[in-house]
Amino acid sequence: MSKGVLFIVSAPSGCGKGTILAEILKSGNIYYSISATTRSPRPGEVNGVNYHFISKEEFEELIENNGVLEYASYCDNYYGTPRKPVEDMLNEGKHVILEIEVQGALKVMQKCPDAVSVFILPPSMKELERRLRKRGTEDNDVIKKRLSQAEDEIKYAENYDYIMVNCELEKAVNDLAAIIRAEELKKENTINLIDEVLCNA
Amino acid sequence: MSKGVLFIVSAPSGCGKGTILAEILKSGNIYYSISATTRSPRPGEVNGVNYHFISKEEFEELIENNGVLEYASYCDNYYGTPRKPVEDMLNEGKHVILEIEVQGALKVMQKCPDAVSVFILPPSMKELERRLRKRGTEDNDVIKKRLSQAEDEIKYAENYDYIMVNCELEKAVNDLAAIIRAEELKKENTINLIDEVLCNA
Repeated sequence: MSKGVLFIVSAPSGCGKGTILAEILKSGNIYYSISATTRSPRPGEVNGVNYHFISKEEFEELIENNGVLEYASYCDNYYGTPRKPVEDMLNEGKHVILEIEVQGALKVMQKCPDAVSVFILPPSMKELERRLRKRGTEDNDVIKKRLSQAEDEIKYAENYDYIMVNCELEKAVNDLAAIIRAEELKKENTINLIDEVLCNA
Repeated sequence: MSKGVLFIVSAPSGCGKGTILAEILKSGNIYYSISATTRSPRPGEVNGVNYHFISKEEFEELIENNGVLEYASYCDNYYGTPRKPVEDMLNEGKHVILEIEVQGALKVMQKCPDAVSVFILPPSMKELERRLRKRGTEDNDVIKKRLSQAEDEIKYAENYDYIMVNCELEKAVNDLAAIIRAEELKKENTINLIDEVLCNA
């Protein structure tokens, strides 16, 4: 059995990444890496589903023992990607998706050179602004901040293996599915088929 | 506009390569490279469709002027891939499929390091034999020769970028389509989107 593939997916807020990933995960062939955090669960959040909620001490022990693929601290809390669950799934031949912002993604690319990275672009900044406003949940200042953040993030897209645009949800889902399937078919992951075919002579 | 991608597709006889490619070419987004040969057209064969039928002198001039990506001679005739039509299509942003046997494929990989190569395997040698016998057009000796040829060719599959199996036509078509789409989405081919998105701010 060949190892699973680690996919790193980044996109600015408002690009529809969550919706695309929800569709992709329905295929059942690919698993979502759950982040760890030291912040308290919000009402309705479930440990092991939304996050692995752990203590500050536990998180710092992970950091010391090279137990996180990347982490950042934000508002006095740690957020990060525990290494072991990801590696366990990959070793079982399962593919793993890491939905992660740009700085964390760059760190994981360094630690995991075999990871396959995908950046999802909005069709245009205008369309991104329209989508953010359509949500209706944020005021003008927040939207402006998100747009400027998006611009900063998009500049890093060139560091990713694949760059795709979310113009239409269905097409974007098909594009990400095509990337995943193509990676499965890469020689590195299918070379054992040669012997299988020849030995069934 | 980014350049088109050159796809090299090889498979042993009986793997269904022709049927898969016919489906892929229906998408209209990808072009088929037509080989040149010095042999005479058979009844029904059309110049520029089945082959470019050219004279021995013309072919040798092509060879001398680095005008073929690969060639071989067989039964006193030359067969090969003219370079210019392929490069013209790629420069126009069109993708090109080169359906070619293993030795020619290896030569094209060397000359065109950006080419993307795909090897199509049969599910097993038994199944390949069943498919060859089902055609009913060849006698036992020919079938045995084709199977032994197939074994030799399959050993070269590890030189290709992608290795896929044709178990079921529809799945195989989807697999090749996924490879083509993923290659279109590779950073090298989509990096210009970053500026496009940012400039439409």
